[in-house]
Amino acid sequence: MRELLKLIDRPGLISFAGGLPAPEVFPLEQFKAAALRVLSEHGTQALQYSTTEGYPKLREMLARHMARYGIVVGADNILITQSSQQALDLIGKVFLNSGDRIAVERPTYLGALQAWNAYQAEYVGITIDHEGMKIEELEDILRSGPKFLYALPNFQNPSGVTLSLTRRRRLVELADHYGVPIIEDDPYGQLRFAGEHLLPLAALDAKARRQKAYSGNVIYISTFSKTLAPGLRLGWVVAPAEVLQRLVLAKQGADLHTGTFVQMVAYETARGGFLDRHVRHIRAVYRERRDAILAALKRHMPPGVSWTEPEGGLFIWAVLPEDLDAVSLLPEAVEHGVAFVPGTCFFDNGSGKNTMRLNFSFMPPGKIEEGIKRLAGVIARVSSDVLRPA
Amino acid sequence: MRELLKLIDRPGLISFAGGLPAPEVFPLEQFKAAALRVLSEHGTQALQYSTTEGYPKLREMLARHMARYGIVVGADNILITQSSQQALDLIGKVFLNSGDRIAVERPTYLGALQAWNAYQAEYVGITIDHEGMKIEELEDILRSGPKFLYALPNFQNPSGVTLSLTRRRRLVELADHYGVPIIEDDPYGQLRFAGEHLLPLAALDAKARRQKAYSGNVIYISTFSKTLAPGLRLGWVVAPAEVLQRLVLAKQGADLHTGTFVQMVAYETARGGFLDRHVRHIRAVYRERRDAILAALKRHMPPGVSWTEPEGGLFIWAVLPEDLDAVSLLPEAVEHGVAFVPGTCFFDNGSGKNTMRLNFSFMPPGKIEEGIKRLAGVIARVSSDVLRPA
Repeated sequence: MRELLKLIDRPGLISFAGGLPAPEVFPLEQFKAAALRVLSEHGTQALQYSTTEGYPKLREMLARHMARYGIVVGADNILITQSSQQALDLIGKVFLNSGDRIAVERPTYLGALQAWNAYQAEYVGITIDHEGMKIEELEDILRSGPKFLYALPNFQNPSGVTLSLTRRRRLVELADHYGVPIIEDDPYGQLRFAGEHLLPLAALDAKARRQKAYSGNVIYISTFSKTLAPGLRLGWVVAPAEVLQRLVLAKQGADLHTGTFVQMVAYETARGGFLDRHVRHIRAVYRERRDAILAALKRHMPPGVSWTEPEGGLFIWAVLPEDLDAVSLLPEAVEHGVAFVPGTCFFDNGSGKNTMRLNFSFMPPGKIEEGIKRLAGVIARVSSDVLRPA
Repeated sequence: MRELLKLIDRPGLISFAGGLPAPEVFPLEQFKAAALRVLSEHGTQALQYSTTEGYPKLREMLARHMARYGIVVGADNILITQSSQQALDLIGKVFLNSGDRIAVERPTYLGALQAWNAYQAEYVGITIDHEGMKIEELEDILRSGPKFLYALPNFQNPSGVTLSLTRRRRLVELADHYGVPIIEDDPYGQLRFAGEHLLPLAALDAKARRQKAYSGNVIYISTFSKTLAPGLRLGWVVAPAEVLQRLVLAKQGADLHTGTFVQMVAYETARGGFLDRHVRHIRAVYRERRDAILAALKRHMPPGVSWTEPEGGLFIWAVLPEDLDAVSLLPEAVEHGVAFVPGTCFFDNGSGKNTMRLNFSFMPPGKIEEGIKRLAGVIARVSSDVLRPA
């Protein structure tokens, strides 16, 4: 698979394979102004060591920001991490022992599996449909006592699916009933360009317990990678004070603290309402690209191929006829100048052979149309070969 | 101890407690120019995801740079890390299983113990004197087969001691003989302001094997924290290709990659000879401060107190009369407006009660003189209490 995935990096491809934000939306001028201001006004602070927990003003801004979508926490519930990937790693370091089972969506985010494989975790998968995790499977799995449950409720990576409000409520209730903590990973929640915002699990959990503030059964993770820029490597994790303290100690051993300079630059860039305005702009760009990919899929895909219709985020999930294998299809697609990630990469159990993840955020609509046309051609050809009666 | 160490952070103290570079030497104007250039000329690249291994130009520059002091490696032997602390963590993640023994200097760098405690490592300590590790202890310990040996050969943190050339040669020879890999941590090697540069263990190992290039038994770690700025969080690790590949995979799970923007800013700041000129400037500043602290110690310390005379780096190690306990002395020192770190923090086995680490890089000479005067007063008072015949 590793060798195969190198194909994806061949230059000149129309690529649906990445998970990259559109570079056109990076707010370069704001970053320049922010970097200059930070170095001019707080230069020695920005270049010096700082606390493991993170830049206080950035943590306070995040607390205000999250309160607006229902997560009511203090800055001291927030740890700034070297991207949300580090939050996953620190959680593994603090909680996991060899052989511990984690309940995951099937498919799920590859980076989480990579982070936790290092701690010899095992996985139990919960199938997802167009409303997210299937609740009938969920209950059995929670009853079996996994160490925690890992969920991406909004525009999931890789499937693009959003967990419905009914299921969110039921998940929070069941997790509480069976005493299983939830790790809520929410990199894309801000990037909703259709439908209505749904409350995060962390907020629903507080509500279900009739608490005004954060209740603590949900550890919430997010990132600036999709709203400001991934090259900063800035994420954060929200946890109850006693858990946060353990994460802070783990981070101290892992890298002492997240870069002071980039934290201050991110704060200076985001503050004063800029982040909100900028996120609205990103939504508009991504909505146009999602519309373009959906139209192209409808126009070009042969019968027997289906796909999700995400209301936000960066990804669409396509399901091919059952006899097709997306892995063996990849080299031919690359020969025709188009790339994707075979869906099986995202399954803890190696299933999903006939699925693929399609990213639509990185390329302009014209390229998306051409790429899907080529990909559809390859699929049509291979389908007719495979499905032709012997 | 944790509670006690909070004392050190009280504002307004003359502090010998930190390990902070002098903020006066941060090259603010160069950073500003570099940040502007990076964002103007390569903005979208700087803000986007990048490879786990690190920014290629930075790796190439480091390869050229290290070749000048005897470590001859290709850029593909170098992994850029989120400060050298992350290199320690990744080494732990890749190599350590619960109960593995690591040979360390006694005392040694606290951050290494913190990184490896997370993997349930155990330690065997080698006493150091004014020439570094005692060779007679070293041989017995290497024969017992620790997982690896961890050494800071230059101006060691915390002791300020440098491993002599004779002992370096012997260490490399013995480690080879007993098949024990060496982790060489060299954050301060560039900051030599007296005496002659000694070849790093990685270079001596290649020489002993009559190889022109890097031999692979020494994993070498360094950082920009002491030469450019710690707030960037940039370090690197040099390892044989097959080890590097495992460190890269571990880093992928830990944080995907080090920030693209800060790597490019560091490269732009350092290139064209600036880093060399800047390091010469830092050396001059730190030499003056070391001279100031040595003069003040000589002037004020009561009989029975001794200290190291480092030829570089940031730290001096003081040894008090045997009956004194630096931990119990700290609150009184803080009351008199001066802070240090009790030496026992740096011992894997909790010994070193009558020792203390004194940082001299952070404060200007005038403050150093006043701080040592106060500290000497406290020590003199406590000594006379403790040592007075009953």
